[in-house]
Order: sequence, then C-alpha cells, then structure tokens
Amino acid sequence: MKAILPVTHGSRRKQSNDEVISLADKLRNYCSQQYDIVNAAFLELAEVLIPDGIKQCVNDGATSIIVLPYFLNSVRHVVEDIPNIVSSTAAQHPDIDIKIAPHLGASNLMMDLLVASADTARGQIT
Amino acid sequence: MKAILPVTHGSRRKQSNDEVISLADKLRNYCSQQYDIVNAAFLELAEVLIPDGIKQCVNDGATSIIVLPYFLNSVRHVVEDIPNIVSSTAAQHPDIDIKIAPHLGASNLMMDLLVASADTARGQIT
Repeated sequence: MKAILPVTHGSRRKQSNDEVISLADKLRNYCSQQYDIVNAAFLELAEVLIPDGIKQCVNDGATSIIVLPYFLNSVRHVVEDIPNIVSSTAAQHPDIDIKIAPHLGASNLMMDLLVASADTARGQIT
Repeated sequence: MKAILPVTHGSRRKQSNDEVISLADKLRNYCSQQYDIVNAAFLELAEVLIPDGIKQCVNDGATSIIVLPYFLNSVRHVVEDIPNIVSSTAAQHPDIDIKIAPHLGASNLMMDLLVASADTARGQIT
C-alpha cells in the first residue's frame, strides 16, 4: 500500500495547522486512485511529528511512503532537517520504502498555479 | 499594463531569496502573453520590500498590479501584514488598481501539484 505524508513546519497558530490537516483530507479524496493512505505530519510545534506520522502510515499498512515537504523554498528545514528526521526514522522501518519528494516550489506546475491565483484576483479588477 | 508582484517573506539565507527572484524571472517568461510586468518583493529581511516593489511596477508602466502572496497557508503575514502594507502603499498610487491574490494553498491546482510532486518521488521507488 502506498502512502503520502505531507509535512509542514507546524505553527503556534492552531488555524494554520488545521489548514494542513484539511489539505491532507482533501488530498486523500483527490488521489485515492493512486495512493492508499494520506496522513499529515509536522516538523515541530504541532502534533503529529514526522516520526509518528511515518509510524502511523506503517500501522495503516503502508509498504511505501512518500514524505511530501509542504514548503515553497529549499529552506534548511527542507534540505537538512526533514531528510535527517526521515533518515533516522526510516532506519527503524527497514522493510518500508521511504522517499522524500521535492519541495513544491520545484514543481513545473507551480507556474500554472501562480498564474491561476493571479487570474483569480484579476477577476476582481474592473 | 498588467503587473504581477509575487511577495514572499524574505530570508536571512540569500539562496532562498534568490530562488524567489528566479521564480519571478521564470513566471515573467511563462505568462508574458497575459501579464506585461512581473517583479518580486519581500515582506522583510530582503530587498526589495513590498512598497518599493509596487513603486517599481508603477515606474515600469503598470496600471493594474496583482500582489501574489507566495505563501502556502493563511498565516498572519498573509491575512494582516501584506494587506496592511499594500493598503497603505496603494493610497500613494490612487490611479493604480491594486489587488491581492489568494495565497497559494487556496488554489484548486494545489492538489495537482501535490500529486505531481509525489509522483516524482514515486518514480524513485523500485
């Protein structure tokens, strides 16, 4: 079974964390044909943390997990912290194939998303 | 003439700021049929700041400007800081139509982008 684990920083502001959990819920419905499990996890400041998020995927039956950094830029969290945490957690689950996806700013679709957002606002310009 | 001004937080890490400037360059080429001007600006910690970014668009000939918050969540920067700065700057440019686009996490295309990023990593899973 294939899992996706969107990972974001975590905020002291509950609403921001709830947005990411809602996003995972939306993603679960959206990609249910391709991915069996979608959970969400946080780097810090909110539950569940990444190691527990990975463990939750394993408990749900995942045999492969894609950690999806919900970050726009290749900040230190993306290039160091998340890989370090995932690497040490993966060592505890040697039978599970765990990979980290590129951060979102690296996606070719980002251009389409930016233009779509601009067009949304443009619709308000008279 | 229509302008887009992607706005991000700004970082002490130069590479993160350079990524956003590169993104604006890429976007300029990508949407040149729809938008005449694409600049980039920062909320803090990096140049140019939002008021100067708006002024730069005006100097480039913009008659409408869409400020595009390059943020994933509706953090305080998105719901308070950027609107406050844009509002006070807009008051200095009463002839220019200035709007703020939704943050990126609000876009319907975000689901496609997330799945595409996961698929990129999935390609590495044997």
